[in-house]
Amino acid sequence: MIDLSCDYNIGCAPELLAALSAANDAPQATYGFDGFSARAKDKIRAAAENPGADVYLLVGGTQTNAAVLAAILRPWEGVLAAASGHIAVHESGAVEATGHKVLTLGADEYGRLSPAALRAYLRGFYADPTYPHMVRPGAVYISHPTELGGLYTAAALRELRAICDEYSLRLFLDGARLAYALASPGPDVTLPLLGRLCDVFYIGGTKCGALCGEAVVFREKQPCFFSAQKQRGALMAKGFLLGLQFDALFTDGLYLRLGRQGVDCALRLREGLRALGVPFAPESASNQQFPVLTAEQLEKLREKVRFEIWERRADGSALVRMCSSWHTTAAEIDAVLAALK
Amino acid sequence: MIDLSCDYNIGCAPELLAALSAANDAPQATYGFDGFSARAKDKIRAAAENPGADVYLLVGGTQTNAAVLAAILRPWEGVLAAASGHIAVHESGAVEATGHKVLTLGADEYGRLSPAALRAYLRGFYADPTYPHMVRPGAVYISHPTELGGLYTAAALRELRAICDEYSLRLFLDGARLAYALASPGPDVTLPLLGRLCDVFYIGGTKCGALCGEAVVFREKQPCFFSAQKQRGALMAKGFLLGLQFDALFTDGLYLRLGRQGVDCALRLREGLRALGVPFAPESASNQQFPVLTAEQLEKLREKVRFEIWERRADGSALVRMCSSWHTTAAEIDAVLAALK
Amino acid sequence: MIDLSCDYNIGCAPELLAALSAANDAPQATYGFDGFSARAKDKIRAAAENPGADVYLLVGGTQTNAAVLAAILRPWEGVLAAASGHIAVHESGAVEATGHKVLTLGADEYGRLSPAALRAYLRGFYADPTYPHMVRPGAVYISHPTELGGLYTAAALRELRAICDEYSLRLFLDGARLAYALASPGPDVTLPLLGRLCDVFYIGGTKCGALCGEAVVFREKQPCFFSAQKQRGALMAKGFLLGLQFDALFTDGLYLRLGRQGVDCALRLREGLRALGVPFAPESASNQQFPVLTAEQLEKLREKVRFEIWERRADGSALVRMCSSWHTTAAEIDAVLAALK
Amino acid sequence: MIDLSCDYNIGCAPELLAALSAANDAPQATYGFDGFSARAKDKIRAAAENPGADVYLLVGGTQTNAAVLAAILRPWEGVLAAASGHIAVHESGAVEATGHKVLTLGADEYGRLSPAALRAYLRGFYADPTYPHMVRPGAVYISHPTELGGLYTAAALRELRAICDEYSLRLFLDGARLAYALASPGPDVTLPLLGRLCDVFYIGGTKCGALCGEAVVFREKQPCFFSAQKQRGALMAKGFLLGLQFDALFTDGLYLRLGRQGVDCALRLREGLRALGVPFAPESASNQQFPVLTAEQLEKLREKVRFEIWERRADGSALVRMCSSWHTTAAEIDAVLAALK
Repeated sequence: MIDLSCDYNIGCAPELLAALSAANDAPQATYGFDGFSARAKDKIRAAAENPGADVYLLVGGTQTNAAVLAAILRPWEGVLAAASGHIAVHESGAVEATGHKVLTLGADEYGRLSPAALRAYLRGFYADPTYPHMVRPGAVYISHPTELGGLYTAAALRELRAICDEYSLRLFLDGARLAYALASPGPDVTLPLLGRLCDVFYIGGTKCGALCGEAVVFREKQPCFFSAQKQRGALMAKGFLLGLQFDALFTDGLYLRLGRQGVDCALRLREGLRALGVPFAPESASNQQFPVLTAEQLEKLREKVRFEIWERRADGSALVRMCSSWHTTAAEIDAVLAALK
Repeated sequence: MIDLSCDYNIGCAPELLAALSAANDAPQATYGFDGFSARAKDKIRAAAENPGADVYLLVGGTQTNAAVLAAILRPWEGVLAAASGHIAVHESGAVEATGHKVLTLGADEYGRLSPAALRAYLRGFYADPTYPHMVRPGAVYISHPTELGGLYTAAALRELRAICDEYSLRLFLDGARLAYALASPGPDVTLPLLGRLCDVFYIGGTKCGALCGEAVVFREKQPCFFSAQKQRGALMAKGFLLGLQFDALFTDGLYLRLGRQGVDCALRLREGLRALGVPFAPESASNQQFPVLTAEQLEKLREKVRFEIWERRADGSALVRMCSSWHTTAAEIDAVLAALK
Repeated sequence: MIDLSCDYNIGCAPELLAALSAANDAPQATYGFDGFSARAKDKIRAAAENPGADVYLLVGGTQTNAAVLAAILRPWEGVLAAASGHIAVHESGAVEATGHKVLTLGADEYGRLSPAALRAYLRGFYADPTYPHMVRPGAVYISHPTELGGLYTAAALRELRAICDEYSLRLFLDGARLAYALASPGPDVTLPLLGRLCDVFYIGGTKCGALCGEAVVFREKQPCFFSAQKQRGALMAKGFLLGLQFDALFTDGLYLRLGRQGVDCALRLREGLRALGVPFAPESASNQQFPVLTAEQLEKLREKVRFEIWERRADGSALVRMCSSWHTTAAEIDAVLAALK
Repeated sequence: MIDLSCDYNIGCAPELLAALSAANDAPQATYGFDGFSARAKDKIRAAAENPGADVYLLVGGTQTNAAVLAAILRPWEGVLAAASGHIAVHESGAVEATGHKVLTLGADEYGRLSPAALRAYLRGFYADPTYPHMVRPGAVYISHPTELGGLYTAAALRELRAICDEYSLRLFLDGARLAYALASPGPDVTLPLLGRLCDVFYIGGTKCGALCGEAVVFREKQPCFFSAQKQRGALMAKGFLLGLQFDALFTDGLYLRLGRQGVDCALRLREGLRALGVPFAPESASNQQFPVLTAEQLEKLREKVRFEIWERRADGSALVRMCSSWHTTAAEIDAVLAALK
């Protein structure tokens, strides 16, 4: 059975497992003060071209979103996000549990927050004389790629940054699948650009070849985020496990290579499905593809490929999500396409 | 350099690494719905002799304490703990961050909450007519072993349970180092006893041979703890990583064996130090020993053994913590003792 | 200048001021344990025809909404509300500050949550297999009248109650302007009905003739709400000030009389404006009227009547809110209408 | 029956009731944007000799403590307070409900935090290498007078301020009974001094002659405290009710006059009791006196005077609290003393 159901249901890249195995027998400094973590952070700072960046390694995405937002917001502030944003939908209210409202905005079909919509919201907000009785926008949350496979352009990010400057908002980018964004042939967003534009963003490990782990990159030094991390249950006792994974991911371009593998497979799938006349909703340049398959096509793939049904339609067709990853092979994609012929 | 500095600074038991490596290539159900997790939970239910127990796998201790307490307390309730309890001191206010006060009580030299002190507090609390203006005690938190190597007796736990019943308190036991308590020759506390007496307790993995992971055991079914876990950032996307570790730990008695290794080393150390006339403060039957070493002895161990200095004294002596673990060997202990001769 | 700008910008009904003055010199029991409060609660229980109701007196609406919701929700639960609901818009995130998400639903033009929309949401929620990753609906919040002058019918409330029973939700009704709802000639909702259908509702004082105060009525005994009230800063030291006001409000039908005065004025205004051909958006049977006035009409009222402009339109017309209250007189309404002729 | 049971069980000073009655019929701007509030704030700024002070009017003490602390602390910070401090004991965990730990220190018999103890704590805290795992001290809370009738000296406050500067702590003074401190003949603490030394303090109304209300004085402008106030349920819709009370309190020296009346009565009582050989525990220069009465003396006062029994002793004697206020008369004190003769 070929598995395109998701990108976080399999262990880690062999390089990481090897590093883990090699390190298994020697004591390490705890709580992230180990050499692996130091090296990983140095490599990330170098990759982001920001020697002053403050890097922290956390375990998972929801935890990271909540810990970062709780640290960068003041109590009366909320965070703006697309209505389809992960923090708005699928984190069981983790952000609200820290006391902050998620303020949702409409987004495009890719789940991207448009600069125009953001600006319109902010203008409307401050034009309303009752705004002091409302939750103040304090930060903007975007995911790149989005939950729907959308990718921001550098121009869009620059415009979001400009709006954030204008309205004293912090810009926070959730990069749970960042490897697939960076490896996508389409957009022009790079790590150094993120390091310059975002107050804070993170480099996803869990979905991009690691067992677990997200590397949070603050543009500037945070005096107390270590304590904040501990307080939110987001500090790993054996932090070197995260350190050695990110050290490996940022050695010899592995992170990008893993991303490229996922994206290449996704694009190979996209091309193949396109050739078969399959429509997409929407089409994506990331590792997630959202084709609409007919009942007959669905039947052909049954028992052969695992993927998520997102929306069953009256005529038996369905909008599905096919998610490739660093682990997917071209041969698997070809087998999927062959099954459809 | 022999390392007795702590029990969470090294990878995992070989059995766990083997299981991890073996499982690395196959997709698994996510969020803990995988077969490893199901087997691990079954084995834990069996070990606790409670088929109705509800078991959840979380990543680390602070996260577990906060997630569990937030779930079992009502907003106006606090949790009673020894003043030296981990939640009261070393979790950066994780419990308070969920809105609950940690109500501290004096404890004995082992950091154990005495039933008498608990009862006295509760009597005093409800005798004070202003108590509705105070934080209501809603749960009792104990750690076993304690942070100071203390071990509860079955009789003490039964008495704590009785008090909890009398005052409608939930009993929560932090078993971050539970393997070392269960393996200690001294006390008579078993998993089935904990399963009967505690509303909820956890079986520590991080300090007892796993890379990470704590298995929370609720005496009764919890309808929404999965969502609570997610909300607190304590749900691992690749939950099978926790599942396969606990599956291995509860196969063929590994968990107890690892605990015994740590405790045997600690007792071997204790006997050796005793024979050298070294005093303890306090003496412990767990994997943590707290000898008071002279300046000369400290010098002898310098560059040979790593351990924590807890309290330097005026005469150059120091109260130290020597912490053995599943990874420590009798040969290492013998080398420590030899260095002191 | 005639003031129709809002219903909480003037002191209290003369009966309340008299009671306050009369009581000013004698010591009272504190924190609501005084005789006035006891009598007020008895009268409210009688009016709600529920001898077992548990009544608490709080200071203001936002505080009441947050304190009640924090008490009736579990940490992983959110509260469903109309997107235009007060807790969703104009309370600066007070509910989120207690850790709970406000889950918003579309509403009708009156800001009323329709039973059909509620049921559709709940069906959709539990049909989505990812729902354990989402915020669980734990309560339904409605306001009666709504922020837009809407009034629920008894039938609609009964249906909402049935849905709440089906989905284990608590039903919470914000009655900040309840006097005007009870006094409205239209709908058939009475205090006893609210006492039967709502898990908890409140009888607004601040907007209905009191200096301040909201009387919260729980259908069943709450063992710790006093402490919850204290914890949320919602317990008045001189609680007798609230007690004596509600005692007066529930003596000789004053509360309803004050409500009727506000509604009668509003309906007189509505009839007069209708006669002048003024359109409404929407028309209301409560004390708030939402006429759309032409530029010429707006000019005629300038310097004579104070009211809120809600939406200025391109042609110079505007949707306005005219809010009468227990303090408004028929003569004032007639003067407004005369000014428009 | 003479009432010395507490200072918040009676209405308000006649001047305030008169102001309230006079204002009862005219509409006012809402939420504190009225003329009374503006005047009250101006007068308070003048009295504190800080034209840049930012003044807010809240309803009660617990609410004020929680709202202020939540606004001035960062999530990982706690507040240092005497173990007997009101926020540590009698506010049902209001501060913890906002996510912050109350870090308690020992205090003197008057419940005063000593600069030496504070400094020792802070030195110890930062000397402990595990401090990043602990709650960071972010603010110091003191009450003046304390809950036990203690009064700080200007020298002590200056020293606390210096320590706060050294350790980047905010200094917050709870002045729920401030009138009695300012009017006490003993200490040299004035409003301008508080305005200079405290980041924020408040001028208590509830216990000092008002129906309700506390005036919070921030040394510097707070851009969003209005929203914070709303969020914590601490913004009164009819804020002019607070404004007119503080306007009256700060007109013609009323606030100090009311304070002096309370203190004069307390000192008259103290002198009288001293003359009768009654011991104190401790003796106070504020409006609260803590004599130890014999069984016989207690009997003599039964049915004549109401006061609080704080601690019954084996020999039938008791430590009691006798609390005078702005409302107490010299004649009442004389009657109490006469009853004891």
